[in-house]
Amino acid sequence: MAISNWELQNTRLNSLLNKLTDEQLAAQTAPGRNSGVYLLGHLAAVSDGLFTYLELGDRLYPQLDEVFLKNADTSGLPKPSIAQLKEYWHRVNTTLKQKFDTIQPADWLTKHSAVSAEDFAKEPHRNKLNILLNRTNHQAYHMGQLTYLVKK
Amino acid sequence: MAISNWELQNTRLNSLLNKLTDEQLAAQTAPGRNSGVYLLGHLAAVSDGLFTYLELGDRLYPQLDEVFLKNADTSGLPKPSIAQLKEYWHRVNTTLKQKFDTIQPADWLTKHSAVSAEDFAKEPHRNKLNILLNRTNHQAYHMGQLTYLVKK
Repeated sequence: MAISNWELQNTRLNSLLNKLTDEQLAAQTAPGRNSGVYLLGHLAAVSDGLFTYLELGDRLYPQLDEVFLKNADTSGLPKPSIAQLKEYWHRVNTTLKQKFDTIQPADWLTKHSAVSAEDFAKEPHRNKLNILLNRTNHQAYHMGQLTYLVKK
Repeated sequence: MAISNWELQNTRLNSLLNKLTDEQLAAQTAPGRNSGVYLLGHLAAVSDGLFTYLELGDRLYPQLDEVFLKNADTSGLPKPSIAQLKEYWHRVNTTLKQKFDTIQPADWLTKHSAVSAEDFAKEPHRNKLNILLNRTNHQAYHMGQLTYLVKK
């Protein structure tokens, strides 16, 4: 169920991306707020980070962090093109889905990579499933903003 | 974990409500988009609906649906005051939390009220836990919009 809720968020964002022109996606989601391009890069970077947190192998695009996690939309750092970002986004999600299919239910309750074995013994909820639930909410949060790119 | 993710969303919204003046909350989240007041009423109505979906007893404020679910912000229908809405919001969440504390883990995997026993036999994921995950995402989605009420 957690995976299917995650996929539902991806499906919704993909369907929004299919509706938006590049010009709409480059616009700010509200005056003075993050652009659609920045949020797409931000979500791609956060999803790419799941390879590390969930111990699913190497990240595909760690270079996204500098522009889309550590710095703001207004940093002036060069951003990848919209076509590139969309390709990154789709590749991260396709690869994640393949990896998710190999995770056994019990593995989801094991510790994620950013918590020590010692802390995990005290706080067993800091597991991989919790990361997935949390990232699903994070994506929904920004989806609520991205939807403002659609003209009324 | 699902309950604690739900509570985390509530905590975030409560902390945002504590920061906003009534004037800020009455404003639109972006030009031409839903106001903070409308989204607060909308979230209160959806959370209140959980009493029904999760079979936790009677709803507290079913009258919210007409203004905040069935009609748009611009309907012209009279809305409760901000003080009233905040009170509804807090009371719904406090009462839900008390009820959640009484639900046994296995109960979360039983069918929610809006699916027939026949359909549930074929689609066992249509259970109470799924409703909670889904509503948590829904709240995060609107939280992403409400956060635009905070001045930059």
